[in-house]
Amino acid sequence: MINNVTTNLMKKIAQLHEIPQGAHSIRKNGEVVSMNSTEHILITSKEDVEGLDIRISSECQKESLHMPVIIENEDISETVYNTFYIGGGADVTIIAGCGLHNEGNESNKSEHNGIHEFHIGKWAKVTYIETHYASGTVETSKVLNPKTIFHIEKDATVTLEMVQLGGVNKSDRDTKVILKDRAKLIISERLMTEDDQIAKSDIVVNLDGKDSSAQIVSRSVARNNSEQTYTFDLVGNNASRGHIECDAIIMDKAKVISKPVVSAFHADANLVHEAAIGKIEAEQIIKLMTLGMTEKESEETIINGFLK
Amino acid sequence: MINNVTTNLMKKIAQLHEIPQGAHSIRKNGEVVSMNSTEHILITSKEDVEGLDIRISSECQKESLHMPVIIENEDISETVYNTFYIGGGADVTIIAGCGLHNEGNESNKSEHNGIHEFHIGKWAKVTYIETHYASGTVETSKVLNPKTIFHIEKDATVTLEMVQLGGVNKSDRDTKVILKDRAKLIISERLMTEDDQIAKSDIVVNLDGKDSSAQIVSRSVARNNSEQTYTFDLVGNNASRGHIECDAIIMDKAKVISKPVVSAFHADANLVHEAAIGKIEAEQIIKLMTLGMTEKESEETIINGFLK
Repeated sequence: MINNVTTNLMKKIAQLHEIPQGAHSIRKNGEVVSMNSTEHILITSKEDVEGLDIRISSECQKESLHMPVIIENEDISETVYNTFYIGGGADVTIIAGCGLHNEGNESNKSEHNGIHEFHIGKWAKVTYIETHYASGTVETSKVLNPKTIFHIEKDATVTLEMVQLGGVNKSDRDTKVILKDRAKLIISERLMTEDDQIAKSDIVVNLDGKDSSAQIVSRSVARNNSEQTYTFDLVGNNASRGHIECDAIIMDKAKVISKPVVSAFHADANLVHEAAIGKIEAEQIIKLMTLGMTEKESEETIINGFLK
Repeated sequence: MINNVTTNLMKKIAQLHEIPQGAHSIRKNGEVVSMNSTEHILITSKEDVEGLDIRISSECQKESLHMPVIIENEDISETVYNTFYIGGGADVTIIAGCGLHNEGNESNKSEHNGIHEFHIGKWAKVTYIETHYASGTVETSKVLNPKTIFHIEKDATVTLEMVQLGGVNKSDRDTKVILKDRAKLIISERLMTEDDQIAKSDIVVNLDGKDSSAQIVSRSVARNNSEQTYTFDLVGNNASRGHIECDAIIMDKAKVISKPVVSAFHADANLVHEAAIGKIEAEQIIKLMTLGMTEKESEETIINGFLK
């Protein structure tokens, strides 16, 4: 089951070098190939549709769950539904992600649609890391469409890291968050597209609860003929704070479109949106070149720093 | 023709105390009541539709044109088309604006739809000031829907000031700008809504020309049950710079929605959007109160400063 390609993909998307000892579910080429529950993290297969129910108890403290999905050299187009029930006061890190490898030709398509719904109890602390990566021949279609919904109860905190650093031809990311009183959301998005890749990211945040807050930082690099579209919808329905920061570096013939909607429906909603799209500043490149780097190396160094 | 109400409206929208000596067109209750061309500013009535053709020659230097529109105590709903042809190198300030006064009841409606199209020649410098104001009984419908289109030729500069500081029940403002090489646009928008007023402002800026630039600063205050919606569409089709800054103070039960779209279709397009919606900071009010002002006075002082 674990070949070199799988090892590489698992490393890229989940920082895993082998099958983890703790709670995990590893999905490969359309089926679950390894699954392990622990005392506080119970994983069961859904009966009606493809996917898992994950129940994390309040006793779960600083534990982690790995859930990589791998598709290799196969014409697979799958839709998987995972539902997370996270107990009040739990503290958990979930490392998800999807890696596609396709060495076929333009008639080959690998596609994963992951629909993740989170019910997060009061005072819980959840970190969810979703990394997307694809490799193989350029002409194959490698598609990832994640849909993630967070219902965040009072006083809970969610940190969401979304990373896609290459190889994925087409991605349509859909994130929806509802926050109750004093609930807190931190989103960090990192995206790079190359060649003719198309990436969309749509984030809707409803600040429903009193003193709820959301901070979203999105950084992206668009190269070659790639295209990125960002849609943010930040809604202040109560006394709340929301801050979106969206920075994009545009290169070559790439296109970046940013479409935020910021809606204040309460006089104590404090909402800020900042978006900046531009190329790398020439001064930055020159500075690194005076340190001995080539122009290409300087560019790469700046991009890597920006996406870190 | 010039009564007290008219004098007050003219003062509010055009800083005019009497009929100006120079180039002007004064429209009252659906008809032109005074019109004057000058050597460099030729005003003629359109033959097919209601409205004017305004031809400003290249010789026009630091001259001004006043074009107030007044509707008083009448059930008037009018649509007026004005077309401006501004010669290369001309330097002109156009003071337009519309004042409505309606003392009727809820069955009375005053509505002015002004469609203004500008063809601006190379190296021209144009300042266009459009002020909207309404007075009279709250229950009457006082509606203003301005539509303004600017075709800006190479190296020309347009400064656009749009002001609406009260009394208008409903306004739908539509502004579209196309900029050629090195053309420059500066927009300053000031808007205040109260009671159940609804205001929309939609600005589309196409940075088509190399080294064209646009700077938009929008400041608004939404009070009571009023609602404001801002739509910006900033499109970088060439090496260009665009900067939108949209700040709103929200009070009482008011709603503010900001929907910008920032699209970079060129690697040398440098686009920035900033939007902030929030209430007046408590510290600011306290500071002024320690200087002897009441809370109400402090609030008014801050709002007036913000909208200046």
